Amino acid sequence: MSTDRIRDHAGQGAPTVAAHRARRRLRADRARQLADLLRRQLLTGAFAAGTLPHESTLAADYRASRNTVRLALDLLRAEGLVERLPGVGTVVVARKYPHGLDRLMGLAETLREHGRISNEVRTMGPVPAPAPVAERLRVAPGADVLYIERLRRLNGLPLSLDLTYLPWDIGGALIGEDLENTDIFRLLEGLTGQSLGHAEISLEAVNADTHSAAVLQAPQGAAVLMLERLTHLADGRPVDLEFIRFRGDRITMSGLLHRSL
Amino acid sequence: MSTDRIRDHAGQGAPTVAAHRARRRLRADRARQLADLLRRQLLTGAFAAGTLPHESTLAADYRASRNTVRLALDLLRAEGLVERLPGVGTVVVARKYPHGLDRLMGLAETLREHGRISNEVRTMGPVPAPAPVAERLRVAPGADVLYIERLRRLNGLPLSLDLTYLPWDIGGALIGEDLENTDIFRLLEGLTGQSLGHAEISLEAVNADTHSAAVLQAPQGAAVLMLERLTHLADGRPVDLEFIRFRGDRITMSGLLHRSL
Repeated sequence: MSTDRIRDHAGQGAPTVAAHRARRRLRADRARQLADLLRRQLLTGAFAAGTLPHESTLAADYRASRNTVRLALDLLRAEGLVERLPGVGTVVVARKYPHGLDRLMGLAETLREHGRISNEVRTMGPVPAPAPVAERLRVAPGADVLYIERLRRLNGLPLSLDLTYLPWDIGGALIGEDLENTDIFRLLEGLTGQSLGHAEISLEAVNADTHSAAVLQAPQGAAVLMLERLTHLADGRPVDLEFIRFRGDRITMSGLLHRSL
Repeated sequence: MSTDRIRDHAGQGAPTVAAHRARRRLRADRARQLADLLRRQLLTGAFAAGTLPHESTLAADYRASRNTVRLALDLLRAEGLVERLPGVGTVVVARKYPHGLDRLMGLAETLREHGRISNEVRTMGPVPAPAPVAERLRVAPGADVLYIERLRRLNGLPLSLDLTYLPWDIGGALIGEDLENTDIFRLLEGLTGQSLGHAEISLEAVNADTHSAAVLQAPQGAAVLMLERLTHLADGRPVDLEFIRFRGDRITMSGLLHRSL
């Protein structure tokens, strides 16, 4: 039901129905407002003990009704961020890891302080470059490129599913390398003897399809942060085209924006 | 079902079952791979006529089986990007708008060439600053801040739901302004006589809760791109804390990352 319809109804329906609907809307709005403040707190580690304050404390701290607090906690539970444990209270069960948006970094590099990245190579081998890949990597359409599919884990937990295309003259040399334990970025810099330059990125939120969700061990339809990234060497040559599905419940992308460039 | 289980089963089950599972997995992997290439094409306007090539053409172009092509189109349809019209073929039905990640810009500003942004102000008024808001806006806890809730539309279509907190000395002056048609960023620059400086942002993919989905007129559980942004004036003072839910099917965030800072 859209809010416009709620608003329309508010002027037309029986007064009690309209009032009930308006109250419900207001309560949902307040719960969202509170949930957003709490989710920020819990994602930045404000509840160090791992347990949220009691509902009555939250109600007092945020000048909200107990009902609003309960609804807000329900929203966070639905997101998989907290759980209610009988006799204990509301505990933080999820942790999102920060992926920098300020600098071009590989996953192991950006998450270094949070643990060990391991990569399960699901597929690796030459494929004829489809037109859109050829164009972006500046190779001839149909020329071989290296295709790699990796399920990436942080401390054993699935984090992302990465589909990668590399030009064959560079990618071919990756085949003997330790892809299980090393970022492709680092391998590329080692193999080419030059550092990476820049990357064009685009980020979207999508619902995981059934199979992607299964691979990521996420619920069907789970929100996924989808990153497409074309990385260039320092000399400008595009060398690495990736389509990355991050589990939405495990990654936050953070950065700084400036008003003037 | 996780891929690990599929893999485990492949070594243990009856050969025909194992082979069937492996084939199904491979087919799903190929479909995702193709879908990622096609989605990029259609989101960047490669199919200018609005119709995708015939399945047999796609199969030839991408050296894929007809079956893989059909599965890939199914994935795009589930995302709401294409539809199959009898007698016409597969048509592009969704459009994602690019939101820049390179520069701090308001919504109307960043989408200027794509149409008109209008803002439905759902709530506006003073609220006592909850602790996490007070801390980030550097005001006393419990001091009044201006709270604004807006449903933002592009050419009439719901795009985002924005929850905004502003310090009262600046925010209070916004109350008489034309919030329906103007970015808060622009109003802030006008009111303070200085330009904005920088913003700390974080981006996540989350599944919309029931009420947020209803407000955004999106399906329940739809993937939402959630942006939290704390914007500072050029002099460094934090003046605008926002929690923004973008409909995942309407927004792509794009930018450039550099290897060295």
